[in-house]
Amino acid sequence: MSAGVAPNAVAAVSEGRLWQRLMEMGEIGGFEFEGGHKGVNRPCLSALDRTARRLLISWAEKMGASVTIDPAGNLFLRLEGEDPSLPAVLTGSHMDSQPQGGRFDGIYGVLAGLEAIEAIATAGIRPKRAIEVVAWTNEEGGRYAPGCTGSMSFTGFKPMSEFDDLVDRDGIRYADALAEQMEAESDLAKRPLGYAPHAYLEAHIEQGPRLEVERKEIGVVTGIQGSRWFTVTVEGRSDHAGTTPLALRRDAVQDMVRAIGALNQLMHDPDDVLRFTVASIKVEPDTSNSVANKAVFTIDFRHPDKAVLLARGDAIAGVVQAAMRSCTATVHERFHALPVDFAETATGAVAAAAQAQGLSSLALPSGAFHDAQFLVPVCPTGMIFIPCRGGVSHHPSEHAEPVACANGARVLAQALLSLANS
Amino acid sequence: MSAGVAPNAVAAVSEGRLWQRLMEMGEIGGFEFEGGHKGVNRPCLSALDRTARRLLISWAEKMGASVTIDPAGNLFLRLEGEDPSLPAVLTGSHMDSQPQGGRFDGIYGVLAGLEAIEAIATAGIRPKRAIEVVAWTNEEGGRYAPGCTGSMSFTGFKPMSEFDDLVDRDGIRYADALAEQMEAESDLAKRPLGYAPHAYLEAHIEQGPRLEVERKEIGVVTGIQGSRWFTVTVEGRSDHAGTTPLALRRDAVQDMVRAIGALNQLMHDPDDVLRFTVASIKVEPDTSNSVANKAVFTIDFRHPDKAVLLARGDAIAGVVQAAMRSCTATVHERFHALPVDFAETATGAVAAAAQAQGLSSLALPSGAFHDAQFLVPVCPTGMIFIPCRGGVSHHPSEHAEPVACANGARVLAQALLSLANS
Repeated sequence: MSAGVAPNAVAAVSEGRLWQRLMEMGEIGGFEFEGGHKGVNRPCLSALDRTARRLLISWAEKMGASVTIDPAGNLFLRLEGEDPSLPAVLTGSHMDSQPQGGRFDGIYGVLAGLEAIEAIATAGIRPKRAIEVVAWTNEEGGRYAPGCTGSMSFTGFKPMSEFDDLVDRDGIRYADALAEQMEAESDLAKRPLGYAPHAYLEAHIEQGPRLEVERKEIGVVTGIQGSRWFTVTVEGRSDHAGTTPLALRRDAVQDMVRAIGALNQLMHDPDDVLRFTVASIKVEPDTSNSVANKAVFTIDFRHPDKAVLLARGDAIAGVVQAAMRSCTATVHERFHALPVDFAETATGAVAAAAQAQGLSSLALPSGAFHDAQFLVPVCPTGMIFIPCRGGVSHHPSEHAEPVACANGARVLAQALLSLANS
Repeated sequence: MSAGVAPNAVAAVSEGRLWQRLMEMGEIGGFEFEGGHKGVNRPCLSALDRTARRLLISWAEKMGASVTIDPAGNLFLRLEGEDPSLPAVLTGSHMDSQPQGGRFDGIYGVLAGLEAIEAIATAGIRPKRAIEVVAWTNEEGGRYAPGCTGSMSFTGFKPMSEFDDLVDRDGIRYADALAEQMEAESDLAKRPLGYAPHAYLEAHIEQGPRLEVERKEIGVVTGIQGSRWFTVTVEGRSDHAGTTPLALRRDAVQDMVRAIGALNQLMHDPDDVLRFTVASIKVEPDTSNSVANKAVFTIDFRHPDKAVLLARGDAIAGVVQAAMRSCTATVHERFHALPVDFAETATGAVAAAAQAQGLSSLALPSGAFHDAQFLVPVCPTGMIFIPCRGGVSHHPSEHAEPVACANGARVLAQALLSLANS
């Protein structure tokens, strides 16, 4: 990269255009929320998802990017390089949201990627390698858990077929939802699944409070903490709530409450680094005057230290079993991702770009998981965080300032160029 | 009643016919359950409910009973008395079931009532007063909570209009479901809502273990414990499960767990007489990697002692509030029924009939609530319990022996005649 080139591309990043596109995307699946907030509910592989993808494609085609999709439904926008035979530099994120999500998580990384390649093209720069912007299928896991099925399929972390039989709340299989999307997008050019990019960068809101609290403009992400997801099923017996003495009951709700209490003890962390969440609960028969015969709850457990992640995660099943008074419990681990460290090649390009632009930065690990973690085994990978208000995400009040969004896109443009010319 | 009359009616009770009808009714909404059990799911005011009512009507018309319905959808089968101008003796129960219920709860009391009047008619006995068998609308509360809307409307405990806006899980209003049923049964003769019966008797499975454990054939029910039903709504904030430090969360699931734990303390009863149940739980957004912003749970609290029912029930809201760490809670009481004592007129007739037939009996209060409790203010009221296996009800394994069902019908027939001739 010549020293004079990147600033032109950086200057061509348009804060107004990027913001306008974020707001326009926020209307697709958007809803009004209390407090004047505008939330987004845009499930993956839905009609809303496809509407959003068509809008993205229209912008990409207007700026001259070529558009392809792979068999996992991942969508690619390519700015061609001088040597099309070289592995491309990849950037992007996802376009699906949580059921009650916000206007920035995921979609920001896709639009920042588009903004970066549009700025590079506008500046008349042709990098050595192509730069591709990807929108990964189903990162959130809101409709089909676990998430990141698109990036896991792309990198071979899991075979695509592994996700076929996931079902959403309406009983629709993942394979069928994906087939419906492929059919709806059959006019788009196909590409094979996966390749080894030269590097991967993902821009994202921080989803935590550190950048805001420490007044830093750019987060240079050093890695992603590990995640383990479990489903616990507690089974007892239904009885009449008015007649059955408590001593004779096998009450699934009560044993679930005991299990959650015991898990709170297991997961206690005075440093508040460990993340332990029970967020989804289903009981049966779910009628107020019949003792529950079944209670199913989820565990989301994360930690940046592999040793802690393994030791406490492995202890979950035993702690749950020990908490059962009269019911039986089964613990199923449905997602297991160890902590990952990003490569210096990628993190260095991000740090250098921030420094060159005079932006303050902070090196920090990611608390959330991202598609980026599945790219780590196949190429040098990094992420760029921008501050978000109060660290809030997965909520309609999620917010990033226009200038913060533009800062992230400018750092991304420069870092992508640096990597694409290396 | 002449001493020679009742035994003829008692002898005319057919164990085989009653059992056959119970099994036939069990097919309407019936389903196969693990362990070879046959469950029933027959919601009130449903097409299945109407199928069951038509079958009942066909049997009643064959034996010469006249059939009427009142504006609350309660269905009456009348065996005329010598003096039709005298208030009738009323018996019956309900035909709806819990979503995963059994083949005896409710329907047994209706069919035992039909068996009793059929036996009386077969014996050629014409009592002084008419005897009516009623099938009350929506006792269970499984589709529209609270239950007993038919008997509450009949006795004026609540005006019928109070239930209009209840909605089921599909959003169907109670008033609309009732109107649909009235329309479907528009061929049946109408009667006005309510009257003061001469007495009311209800036969029912015990739904508790005492008769079985103490090897008694008939339960002479002395009254019904009081019930208070609450809905607790815990509201916090949704956050990203991977990034938000636990100290900064307002996690509705965690505060719900704290509240249930504190309520367990409040409701602790070494004598195991108190009934405290949390059986229905809903969380939002109910996605495993977003902290829950809302958790709603139900409380079903019952006690035979009015003082305990009032004191501990009134303490619920304060205990819930005190348990909140970071969320807010609202406690709504949606059902409140004080304990009731049955009248000696009715309980005496039941006890005397059991004794005359050489059946062992036990005086006991009802742990479950029943339509009978709403009849207490308007006429002498009693209940007959028969043993059920393991005390289990509201479950497909609910079971009463054919001989126990017949014993109850025989005691009912004699007690009804005794009351109808008084």
